[in-house]
Amino acid sequence: MSKIKVAIAGPRGRMGQEAVKMVLETDQFELVGALDHRHDGKLLQDILPGVKDEIPIYGDIKSLLSSLTIDVLVDLTTPDVGYLHTKEAIMHGVRPVVGTTGFTQDQLSELRELAEEKGIGVIIAPNFAIGAILMMKFAQMASKYLPDVEIIEMHHDQKLDAPSGTAIKTAEMIQQVRESKQQGHPDEKEIVTGARGGDLDGIHIHSVRLKGLVAHQQVMLGGEGQLLTLKHDSFNRASFMSGVKMCVETIMNLDTLVYGLENLID
Amino acid sequence: MSKIKVAIAGPRGRMGQEAVKMVLETDQFELVGALDHRHDGKLLQDILPGVKDEIPIYGDIKSLLSSLTIDVLVDLTTPDVGYLHTKEAIMHGVRPVVGTTGFTQDQLSELRELAEEKGIGVIIAPNFAIGAILMMKFAQMASKYLPDVEIIEMHHDQKLDAPSGTAIKTAEMIQQVRESKQQGHPDEKEIVTGARGGDLDGIHIHSVRLKGLVAHQQVMLGGEGQLLTLKHDSFNRASFMSGVKMCVETIMNLDTLVYGLENLID
Amino acid sequence: MSKIKVAIAGPRGRMGQEAVKMVLETDQFELVGALDHRHDGKLLQDILPGVKDEIPIYGDIKSLLSSLTIDVLVDLTTPDVGYLHTKEAIMHGVRPVVGTTGFTQDQLSELRELAEEKGIGVIIAPNFAIGAILMMKFAQMASKYLPDVEIIEMHHDQKLDAPSGTAIKTAEMIQQVRESKQQGHPDEKEIVTGARGGDLDGIHIHSVRLKGLVAHQQVMLGGEGQLLTLKHDSFNRASFMSGVKMCVETIMNLDTLVYGLENLID
Amino acid sequence: MSKIKVAIAGPRGRMGQEAVKMVLETDQFELVGALDHRHDGKLLQDILPGVKDEIPIYGDIKSLLSSLTIDVLVDLTTPDVGYLHTKEAIMHGVRPVVGTTGFTQDQLSELRELAEEKGIGVIIAPNFAIGAILMMKFAQMASKYLPDVEIIEMHHDQKLDAPSGTAIKTAEMIQQVRESKQQGHPDEKEIVTGARGGDLDGIHIHSVRLKGLVAHQQVMLGGEGQLLTLKHDSFNRASFMSGVKMCVETIMNLDTLVYGLENLID
Repeated sequence: MSKIKVAIAGPRGRMGQEAVKMVLETDQFELVGALDHRHDGKLLQDILPGVKDEIPIYGDIKSLLSSLTIDVLVDLTTPDVGYLHTKEAIMHGVRPVVGTTGFTQDQLSELRELAEEKGIGVIIAPNFAIGAILMMKFAQMASKYLPDVEIIEMHHDQKLDAPSGTAIKTAEMIQQVRESKQQGHPDEKEIVTGARGGDLDGIHIHSVRLKGLVAHQQVMLGGEGQLLTLKHDSFNRASFMSGVKMCVETIMNLDTLVYGLENLID
Repeated sequence: MSKIKVAIAGPRGRMGQEAVKMVLETDQFELVGALDHRHDGKLLQDILPGVKDEIPIYGDIKSLLSSLTIDVLVDLTTPDVGYLHTKEAIMHGVRPVVGTTGFTQDQLSELRELAEEKGIGVIIAPNFAIGAILMMKFAQMASKYLPDVEIIEMHHDQKLDAPSGTAIKTAEMIQQVRESKQQGHPDEKEIVTGARGGDLDGIHIHSVRLKGLVAHQQVMLGGEGQLLTLKHDSFNRASFMSGVKMCVETIMNLDTLVYGLENLID
Repeated sequence: MSKIKVAIAGPRGRMGQEAVKMVLETDQFELVGALDHRHDGKLLQDILPGVKDEIPIYGDIKSLLSSLTIDVLVDLTTPDVGYLHTKEAIMHGVRPVVGTTGFTQDQLSELRELAEEKGIGVIIAPNFAIGAILMMKFAQMASKYLPDVEIIEMHHDQKLDAPSGTAIKTAEMIQQVRESKQQGHPDEKEIVTGARGGDLDGIHIHSVRLKGLVAHQQVMLGGEGQLLTLKHDSFNRASFMSGVKMCVETIMNLDTLVYGLENLID
Repeated sequence: MSKIKVAIAGPRGRMGQEAVKMVLETDQFELVGALDHRHDGKLLQDILPGVKDEIPIYGDIKSLLSSLTIDVLVDLTTPDVGYLHTKEAIMHGVRPVVGTTGFTQDQLSELRELAEEKGIGVIIAPNFAIGAILMMKFAQMASKYLPDVEIIEMHHDQKLDAPSGTAIKTAEMIQQVRESKQQGHPDEKEIVTGARGGDLDGIHIHSVRLKGLVAHQQVMLGGEGQLLTLKHDSFNRASFMSGVKMCVETIMNLDTLVYGLENLID
């Protein structure tokens, strides 16, 4: 089997650097080029010291797409330029894997249409941590059979928002499949306000913030005499790369747009 | 919607008693009769003090099936008589839900053929703990994406065999989908023999035995910078009843034999 | 070593029955009598079918104390009569082990004085679950070195109050040793009200309520790059008995009143 | 209160760099100098770019000790030179905090004598992770009351030895206080060899090795109807620094040699 030819947009960013490393370390992938508007004409090794292969950088998407043969474009830039990159890539028959939460519904609809017209795969991923995606997917599946659910998410104490986006997303996915219900005894009473956590349409979410923690979530599903716990620990940024890798592999067999890695799991 | 009419074979056993309780407490179910060769002609309340409704007991399967209108027969007896009950039930067009690990391949084949001939559902379940089933199913699904797996099972210190049947079953299910691999460093060394646990085709299984524990298992799947943990705690026998309940509901829409609850989950 | 002679007040209650069982099963203890105002003159086997030894029941505390040679009186009645029993026992030179949260400060002071006068041990225990006591004690000790702490307590969904008494007690014990501090980022924001849990003088407490759970608590202490978790699971009422056993053993070497098992641990 | 004046031997090593950072960030500490035989006469900022203050480096221990006023010497070098540094420091009345497992019994005895002669504190620490120390200490304390214990340690899959040194140390500490006993049923049978883990004088140790993990250990203590779990997660090297910090604070009040941080905990 020939290798999958990958180009990376945004190679200097924190995600971008990890993606460069992952593609270089994966046998069945070949890194053929990068897109970085500030370093047109240089080689990747000029801006990322660890890189050994001679990989050309292009300063705009059109030059990149017309100069190289690319199977998959991994885009880790910002929503604004990412949208333009994605559109151009599809029109050139190059499959985009895009890490963003920032596309509008209109943009997604347009890209979906374009993907189907061209008959090629497109993946838009708000989250690449495959373990976290699995946890959410399994929580949704399990809540059909064990509808009593609470969520505990735990992060370092520099995090400002509570609950986390992943916890809210998990609760929303559960609500799609379980009948609406209120967790806990109808007459329960908080002696200390907030003890029972945040209530999102009947699902209680508890947010722990502690020095030393990174990003962790556990979903607890209770039934008569039993408990099912689904827990994900993210220890560092590298956790996102197994998801990017899965996308690059999977997208070759898609012919439409997929939003969210949970829709790739079977 | 009319209620599902249920009969229970083996109402005196520990599982049977829980099943009687579950059916009586479930609004959409109706307990219409019981099968108990030692109490033919009595009422269920004569042998199970808590029961209030007048539920007839029959001493043999043919009388039960010909005397009552039954949708589902829940059989919690032994493999020998259970096999005969199941066969008779199918021939009478009554759907059997059977809790057993004891049927032979030949018996299963014969029952499957019979079920398809009659076009009705049959469920044979080695394990009714829906949470444990979900844990095993999810472990299998996740190991496609995170193939580095170890299993820890924890039981009370009166358990004789290690590892547990559930742990072995889980490892077998994982092996069906992940490529064969050896867990741990190729040069790893046990300073204390056995420290790395039991090795089942590359999957390490660790069996903890402690006073106070009941039946617990956790499957750990590691990836770059992340860990996914799937844990099931079984606190008491009632944990099996949510699985029996699910079977009684689901079997009405089946027209073939299903072996194992993991094949009912979607 | 001769056996410790134990009498039990309140043998019919749920705690009392477990205590009878524990004393009978413990080699170094001897059950010499019981106190039950409704069954004066009977034998314990008349009211508790499992008991084989002939153990006399007395209807009032004075008859019990004057009729038998007793080392330790385990009192599992109510605060009102328990107080009277305790006082009488001390005056007769019998060591009381009392399970209650209901004594007033005045009553405790009086009993402490009496104990010291007589030079014998008295143990008043709001909680006999030795594992829970250890968890609280360790949480207090650890918070001197790792002062960033949050508490998660988890109970069945029939519990009315949140947080649990044990969680509040744990927070109070921690506050005795750590400097006052606010957990989490000063600018943190609850997107869903209550997500950050209940705040007890800077310690956040999260109360999970789920079907299937019994009584569980985990204390999490974070530090740079590390996390210490202290967790206690109480699976059933028997968990209290190891604490009662420890008290009966320990009280023989005390010559004062001790309130709370945490003060017996070294 | 005046600040504690600290010098660091071995500032270029991985532990040393973390120690420099910790001392600079701690308000009540002042970094007055460093010992590095390869950089005599330079400033610390010449070899560690992040440092802003002008901190002199000395090439040998005698110059360091005679040139500066030092309260505490944190030595993170190797056992050979570390031993010489420690001896010199004590003779100059400077308190040494030494991170090593490499001193012989004879060396320890000699240093202890010297410390007592001079009446100053010395701390020799095989492990500075305060959370891990607390876990071991608590496991020892708890096993007096809950003597049924098993240990699970979990590390990344590049670790060669199983079980870990911490797990073996924990088992040894438990054996000092609990009566010898065999864990599990006397007739238990391993269907898969090694399933019950390594057996260290009756304490079973289970070693998990998984990609993504760092260094984790949990000690489980079971009792009738209950379970106490003590778990420590070490996410990165910074976890050692809270222990070094505690030593620098504590050593000012010691007048003897202490081996192991567990002996500083009260």
